[in-house]
Amino acid sequence: MSNSKVVELAVLDAETVVPCCPPLTERPLTAEEAVRTAAMFKALGDPVRLRLFSLVASHEGGEACVCDISDVGVSQPTVSHHLKKLKDAGLLTSERRGTWVYYRVEPSVVAAMGQMLGTRS
Amino acid sequence: MSNSKVVELAVLDAETVVPCCPPLTERPLTAEEAVRTAAMFKALGDPVRLRLFSLVASHEGGEACVCDISDVGVSQPTVSHHLKKLKDAGLLTSERRGTWVYYRVEPSVVAAMGQMLGTRS
Repeated sequence: MSNSKVVELAVLDAETVVPCCPPLTERPLTAEEAVRTAAMFKALGDPVRLRLFSLVASHEGGEACVCDISDVGVSQPTVSHHLKKLKDAGLLTSERRGTWVYYRVEPSVVAAMGQMLGTRS
Repeated sequence: MSNSKVVELAVLDAETVVPCCPPLTERPLTAEEAVRTAAMFKALGDPVRLRLFSLVASHEGGEACVCDISDVGVSQPTVSHHLKKLKDAGLLTSERRGTWVYYRVEPSVVAAMGQMLGTRS
């Protein structure tokens, strides 16, 4: 897998920050690249956040608000807190509509993370 | 993307533990699936560990020992500590040969993580 797909993603969606980096099998990351990318993996490195992320990602219409989430075993403020962390890491975007904030997966960032885990082919 | 590729990986490499789970966009993860999988993302959620992982993954022959790693800005014992954490998370395997322990990426686990980040196609 080459870098070209990551570059292409950046062009397709220039307003969002996308990961910088080639597949992890291609060359060692620099310190700066590692700091930038580890933050995204860390955001998914908590069971509650990972469940919330999959809830949003698989929800009808590709978006969800706190009002759609009731069965993860934590309070609504805690859900909001974790959704904000996922947003801060660049994995979700949000939009307020009326009372609620709706979250949506940022596909370019998630795709780039997937590509980093791809193997040389 | 269907579940079949994950199952196939498990069959191809039955001795290793592979992630359980479908793409995150397919359905919400259960609590148990999230605990299991978050541990792997967490292992890559530290800049030093992520650099070490990419060093091993991209090293000649697909494996590396502590003796091959000198430029990540942490001591050799710290390198060993992080490599062990990556191994505990199932991302690396290790083999002792003479004085050194050699680490190698566990491709089925990394591929399954990549598939979880895949989008519905």
